[in-house]
Amino acid sequence: MQRIKAVVSYDGTDFSGWQVQPEKRTVQSEIEKALTKIHKGSHVEVTASGRTDASVHALGQVMHFDTPLCIPDEKWPKAINSHLPEDVYVLAAERTTADFHARFDAIEKEYIYRVQTNSQPDIFRRRYTLFYPYPLNIENMKQAAEHLVGTHDFTSFCASGTDVKDMVRTVYKIDILEDRDELQFVLRGNGFLYNMVRIMVGTLLEVGRGKKAPHDISELLAARDRGKAGKTVPGHGLFLAEVKYKNRVSSNYA
Amino acid sequence: MQRIKAVVSYDGTDFSGWQVQPEKRTVQSEIEKALTKIHKGSHVEVTASGRTDASVHALGQVMHFDTPLCIPDEKWPKAINSHLPEDVYVLAAERTTADFHARFDAIEKEYIYRVQTNSQPDIFRRRYTLFYPYPLNIENMKQAAEHLVGTHDFTSFCASGTDVKDMVRTVYKIDILEDRDELQFVLRGNGFLYNMVRIMVGTLLEVGRGKKAPHDISELLAARDRGKAGKTVPGHGLFLAEVKYKNRVSSNYA
Repeated sequence: MQRIKAVVSYDGTDFSGWQVQPEKRTVQSEIEKALTKIHKGSHVEVTASGRTDASVHALGQVMHFDTPLCIPDEKWPKAINSHLPEDVYVLAAERTTADFHARFDAIEKEYIYRVQTNSQPDIFRRRYTLFYPYPLNIENMKQAAEHLVGTHDFTSFCASGTDVKDMVRTVYKIDILEDRDELQFVLRGNGFLYNMVRIMVGTLLEVGRGKKAPHDISELLAARDRGKAGKTVPGHGLFLAEVKYKNRVSSNYA
Repeated sequence: MQRIKAVVSYDGTDFSGWQVQPEKRTVQSEIEKALTKIHKGSHVEVTASGRTDASVHALGQVMHFDTPLCIPDEKWPKAINSHLPEDVYVLAAERTTADFHARFDAIEKEYIYRVQTNSQPDIFRRRYTLFYPYPLNIENMKQAAEHLVGTHDFTSFCASGTDVKDMVRTVYKIDILEDRDELQFVLRGNGFLYNMVRIMVGTLLEVGRGKKAPHDISELLAARDRGKAGKTVPGHGLFLAEVKYKNRVSSNYA
């Protein structure tokens, strides 16, 4: 058996998220179907760096799976892609060590959230941006974002109902980029709680509109109360952009 | 009755083109349904600057319709948009003269055709670009395009089966812009025959790949034979960008 690590992009629009669910179209099930075809009917399970919700996209989700097949690294993407629908695409694959785990070994993730701020919606971006036609104070949003950077208990920014115990995460960086009529939030951290990116963006947008002040963020974090933070913005503006792993010693391959 | 001229954008992906067809989802029928609702059930017909085919998009299609309602210009878009699905959007509307005709009065059209030239498809642009992962000689394509500019008989660039008699059109300009991994063809002319833009782009791409030489284009035009030109590229890369009209004397409004 060989363990393969692969980078995959998908358009979340027509998916009920990453994870297999009965009767639903999910990214995981499409990829497993494709791999099962390549393996002549024997089921192959894939494990991702983390689930993504319905309508959330990925530019660089990472997953692993085990295979008895000896296919050169560079041929794997084409082999899988030939069995995938047009909204999922494997970008790269490589043989990795048997102990590599796409979820547990991830040390950093980058998410991008796209917001359309013009007064009229560009319908061609409706699946990939939040349409938010309000004047925003970007400077205040950037200040507020600085309060979120660092190691904090992010209970206030986690959707309730999660069974995760440890709510402490480290956010390395939040960039707010202006690109013509679009705002892009680029968030990097060692991990994100359930809906954490979407609640942070929702809160920053409320700061932008003047409903909250930048310095409110510290109190908000301290309160450890989901009710204090802003709304959860919709999934369709969110992209899982990159997952990083520790550099591994290549002799592990032997 | 008042005649209203409106500018409309649509994502052609899920439409069988502009024109009403029985049992098909078309842009015209969605807009007429919306207008009929505003007019409490009485049917309102709209006339566009021209049809667009299935999966062809519009950034600025122009249409006109007649109405007995007195709604200020700036309120029309919102009124119509509130009854439209999310893939059609009215950008602007204004009262015009009773003799204005969206099709017959158009003096210039601009189309854009988008081509993705990277080796791996960006799935997020799959509905809006032709994926064409081949090395292209852009300089040769630009030279070839110059041969198409001007007043010519474009029979070689018109899909067969049309009942149009006069095949002479004037192409004002063809720009080929490189934007990262994308090529954009911007074509302006006084009018385009059926599939003319798509056949011109298909032919220019063949020049880019070295299958045709730039100077072949003149012969091709002279041949007046659809069989000599390149393939028709798919509709989903095509956008009707703008339609221009003569400036009209404003006293006509009275």
